[in-house]
Amino acid sequence: MRFTSEHRLDDGVVERDFLLGEVPGTLWLPDSAGPVPLILTAHNNGLPRTADRLVARARISAARGYAVATIDAAGCGDRPLSAADERARAELRRAARAGEPVDEILESLVGPLVERAAPEWRTTLDALLSLPEVGGPVGYSGWMALGVRLAAVEPRIVAAGFFAGGFVPRAQRAEARLVTVPLLMLLQWDDEGNPRQRALDLFDAFGTREKTLHANLGGHTGTPRFELDDAHRFFDRHLR
Amino acid sequence: MRFTSEHRLDDGVVERDFLLGEVPGTLWLPDSAGPVPLILTAHNNGLPRTADRLVARARISAARGYAVATIDAAGCGDRPLSAADERARAELRRAARAGEPVDEILESLVGPLVERAAPEWRTTLDALLSLPEVGGPVGYSGWMALGVRLAAVEPRIVAAGFFAGGFVPRAQRAEARLVTVPLLMLLQWDDEGNPRQRALDLFDAFGTREKTLHANLGGHTGTPRFELDDAHRFFDRHLR
Repeated sequence: MRFTSEHRLDDGVVERDFLLGEVPGTLWLPDSAGPVPLILTAHNNGLPRTADRLVARARISAARGYAVATIDAAGCGDRPLSAADERARAELRRAARAGEPVDEILESLVGPLVERAAPEWRTTLDALLSLPEVGGPVGYSGWMALGVRLAAVEPRIVAAGFFAGGFVPRAQRAEARLVTVPLLMLLQWDDEGNPRQRALDLFDAFGTREKTLHANLGGHTGTPRFELDDAHRFFDRHLR
Repeated sequence: MRFTSEHRLDDGVVERDFLLGEVPGTLWLPDSAGPVPLILTAHNNGLPRTADRLVARARISAARGYAVATIDAAGCGDRPLSAADERARAELRRAARAGEPVDEILESLVGPLVERAAPEWRTTLDALLSLPEVGGPVGYSGWMALGVRLAAVEPRIVAAGFFAGGFVPRAQRAEARLVTVPLLMLLQWDDEGNPRQRALDLFDAFGTREKTLHANLGGHTGTPRFELDDAHRFFDRHLR
């Protein structure tokens, strides 16, 4: 893990960009001494990790005393998609415009993205936990499909916050029963592209005994501001 | 409204029993000067308002700066059921033991209870708001069937917290679309006697634009302790 920049922001949070092999990432650290708990915060949909709302959320978590880390997985930010991914994306756009079913196309696109992202995240986690500023425990926040995989296979993750606003491939729907850590799942009740019943079925399928669903009226991007506080309270219960 | 007793409790909360006609109730007030917001907290199922967990919840809310009031509606505490109610309860027990459907029996029991309780609660609200210690705004917490009726017809209620752990009669399922205040609905995912899908359908039906569902794994009485904090944060947002 090679740090390429470091800035102290006006909220006292320290923002460090890093490279881990070809994978670019950012670590935000609170203005406090000693190792702090870590939240891995993952995004998808081709967003760069520098997107305003991702950075804003990360800084709020860091200001509350967490180390927060993210990477650009394949297809996010400046990292190229594979030729197969590009074809799947083009096909997805075409099918969506034509009003055709998109499930199988999403399966062929998101499934491989999760398969490739998970080992990158685990390597990143190894490197992060070797830093003196980063302690544990470790929580996960964000992209649900990847989070299911990581929570199922990565014993260092002890609590998971999932945003149920993205396609979850077959493999992760099957892996849900392997997730046994406390989880908070956030659902937008009228998310245009994500059928509500599928999210409820997934919530039902998780193997954990301590799971909470927060559902709010509105579309994909309408999550109320107070849910950010609620997520921090969830992590405060399990990471402190 | 005639106060029949007053005690200062060890958390500084003042507990006053009252009678309003034949209706007994209790008001808990915080240890603070000036009028405070009011939470009406309603129960059902024949519980007395003096039940330990009801009192404990009310005292926590009062200690957080709310006036909290409850009454024993017909059939609760010492108040008798009508002969028809008694017959319905006996029939309910018989049908439940025999494994027969109970919906129509519940309809005949709970429907009239709501019809009779609602005007008692509105009269109680009039009396409470005339007290110098009690200001507004007014929130509602607890028994969902009654709460739907009150939130639909009582403009002084500006926020409602519902526990989706009881039968909701047909009339209230229809009235849900008339509820337009912010609401928080609490659902136990595996509540033995209360079908999950019915609660989700009701959540969907509410007319309000600002509604949040919190679902937790577990049975009827398994609501996690942190939901009490969440409920207070909901009321803090809307009553302060």
